[in-house]
Amino acid sequence: MNYTAEIIAVGTELLLGNIANTDAQDVSIALSELGINVFFQTVVGDNVERLKQAVNIAKSRANIIITTGGLGPTFDDLTKQTLAEAFGKKLILNKDVANTIMAYFEKRLPGIKMTNNNLRQAELPEGCVVFDNGVGTAPGCAFESDGTHVLMLPGPPRECREMLKTCVTPYLKKLSESEIHSHNIHIFGLGESAVEEKLRDLMENLQNPTLAPYAKTGEVMLRLTAKARSASEAEKLMKPVLDKVRETLGDIVYGVDTGSLENTVASLLIDHGTSLATAESCTGGLLSKRLTDIPGASNFFFGGLVTYSVASKTTLLGIDPLLIKEKHAVSREVALAMADGARSGLGADIGVGITGLAGPDGDGSDVEPGTVFVALTTNEASFCRRLSLSPDRDRTRAMGASHALDMIRRHLTGLRVVGE
Amino acid sequence: MNYTAEIIAVGTELLLGNIANTDAQDVSIALSELGINVFFQTVVGDNVERLKQAVNIAKSRANIIITTGGLGPTFDDLTKQTLAEAFGKKLILNKDVANTIMAYFEKRLPGIKMTNNNLRQAELPEGCVVFDNGVGTAPGCAFESDGTHVLMLPGPPRECREMLKTCVTPYLKKLSESEIHSHNIHIFGLGESAVEEKLRDLMENLQNPTLAPYAKTGEVMLRLTAKARSASEAEKLMKPVLDKVRETLGDIVYGVDTGSLENTVASLLIDHGTSLATAESCTGGLLSKRLTDIPGASNFFFGGLVTYSVASKTTLLGIDPLLIKEKHAVSREVALAMADGARSGLGADIGVGITGLAGPDGDGSDVEPGTVFVALTTNEASFCRRLSLSPDRDRTRAMGASHALDMIRRHLTGLRVVGE
Repeated sequence: MNYTAEIIAVGTELLLGNIANTDAQDVSIALSELGINVFFQTVVGDNVERLKQAVNIAKSRANIIITTGGLGPTFDDLTKQTLAEAFGKKLILNKDVANTIMAYFEKRLPGIKMTNNNLRQAELPEGCVVFDNGVGTAPGCAFESDGTHVLMLPGPPRECREMLKTCVTPYLKKLSESEIHSHNIHIFGLGESAVEEKLRDLMENLQNPTLAPYAKTGEVMLRLTAKARSASEAEKLMKPVLDKVRETLGDIVYGVDTGSLENTVASLLIDHGTSLATAESCTGGLLSKRLTDIPGASNFFFGGLVTYSVASKTTLLGIDPLLIKEKHAVSREVALAMADGARSGLGADIGVGITGLAGPDGDGSDVEPGTVFVALTTNEASFCRRLSLSPDRDRTRAMGASHALDMIRRHLTGLRVVGE
Repeated sequence: MNYTAEIIAVGTELLLGNIANTDAQDVSIALSELGINVFFQTVVGDNVERLKQAVNIAKSRANIIITTGGLGPTFDDLTKQTLAEAFGKKLILNKDVANTIMAYFEKRLPGIKMTNNNLRQAELPEGCVVFDNGVGTAPGCAFESDGTHVLMLPGPPRECREMLKTCVTPYLKKLSESEIHSHNIHIFGLGESAVEEKLRDLMENLQNPTLAPYAKTGEVMLRLTAKARSASEAEKLMKPVLDKVRETLGDIVYGVDTGSLENTVASLLIDHGTSLATAESCTGGLLSKRLTDIPGASNFFFGGLVTYSVASKTTLLGIDPLLIKEKHAVSREVALAMADGARSGLGADIGVGITGLAGPDGDGSDVEPGTVFVALTTNEASFCRRLSLSPDRDRTRAMGASHALDMIRRHLTGLRVVGE
């Protein structure tokens, strides 16, 4: 049997934009791990007519319908009634669930009288499987009708996530025959469209595994996904594609399943027993922030200096003010001096210096906003990249930090650090 | 004319759960500010047939259709073709847009040959209004057909958000008869449910204006929105509610329409002509990163030291190693010494020191993960807050930085800096 799922999130707060639909994301992740296709997600408010409409559409194109939200005790919680009716089921008071809810109230809120509407949470579609709510009162449930499986989950993200893990995945695993396995291929140094251009022939002809690109600031991730009866069979399907991608893209692939660039760099620094110190101007601490996002960063990160003012470059890094005057604070020479200053000041193996004009405005000199110099120095070598970016403050800063990480990675793995 | 909007987000990555649908949230917020109803949000993959199906359903129940995603240069970017076809429009190469894209490439990536697929981004439905993309290459657009307005926005959240502000809101405002005006009330120091509890009576009885809470890490924002025929009429409706909120919440309201906490602090520092230096341990540069997010930060931010290792606290801040040994690196005394070290080292008016154990793991000592000390010192005064947070690394770091900003704000505005 081939399953197609559709997710319906119920809640007016989603339509007002009060919260992001993280429930749909969590359900999608769980389904994609099970190899179950999701073709549509829908969001509908707390409104019986419109929910009915969404359910009828979903019925026509999916055989697994998963709803989130609208299971609570209040009058606008209408999911169970509406779904039961749509599939010709009655709601019946489940005594076990009613007892659990009463016990919950007695235990958590002694002395507070439970209102009757709380018992509405114990009314469930006849013949359903009850999904216990480990972290709240409203249970979820699942029933089958004419080959369609309907699963209803609570809306609060913590409750939904917990129920996905403990109830939904086991329920759906029983339905599914094949497994899904995937690899994430991480790329820095080429934009999304250029990556796709290089891989177009490969991507267009793939059925299983599939290869899909995801872009984030300055980076591209390719997800390679295979459907098979076992992990080893999936790996066998993915291996030649992974090899081909590596061969085509070369050393701009910085890792497979390694997480972020900072994660990769952190692992490399730890493996090499190499220590790092940073001096940041335009990035204002973003590089050190990203490095210290990694638990255990104290093993390699000796410290950082955010020398945002000209004076601080002199005070903290010992840079000759004449050099800054002569070459400009945003220059190759100052970036290199910053890297050296951080490295010697903190006694680290590698020093990184970043100076640039993040913009949006210029500083009155010839330096264009969006210009960034990123330098890396060690005892033996020194490198500097010059970036000419669009004068978008956030992006310029993000790219400055990412280029620094890329230079560290290249230096530690024996690749060419600057230029092609 | 009464408008009902439907949002269609296009992207397989959403159906796989790779990202949350924040675009739909952002669009919903923008529409709700304009007083336009949204009854459905749909997510569909990069698939022509299913996108067509979603568009046809949306056509039958809404007269504003807003899509996000699928405007890029790659072969799976199909939104424009599909929407144009659904409404009987041709795609035509827009020369102005093509020139802009070519100029963009020439300027940003000199020497790199633009691939032809990038020009596909300049093919737009005949007779459409072009929405310039301020932060990327793919333009958005809008057209009207038989009373239905179709608006297409790019998928990358940054581009979508920017286009909502600069193009979509002005476009839709022209359709609407009444004006919507709003104020954002920014709060730090109380959680969302506590804020709601305090304001419950007020919020429940409001019709126009409305008051809606939005939570982000450690902060709450209340959006006050009024619908009226003019700005001054809207202000008249909002004034008493705004006064009541301020009266109820007191000095935890850090600003109205002031943007982020760092924005507020930056303005205060500039107004007071006060300079700042920071020393960060567990936050690893996050505070200085947030301060330097603000253009013009060099006017008040003299510099920052990221003293992630014990040695760097001694080397860079001149802290007596015995003090660290005796009191522990995560202690009130060390936080204060860090603030003093940064202040005197950089010659700034205010010094801030943050030291903590972000977790998730402990360091073998008595200090609990989630413990953070935030110190602020000046020539005359010194303050230190002790935070006991849950051992969630990202949250602990974010809260440490936010508390530092809150302390600076309180110090500069003559409020009590520590304790209640």
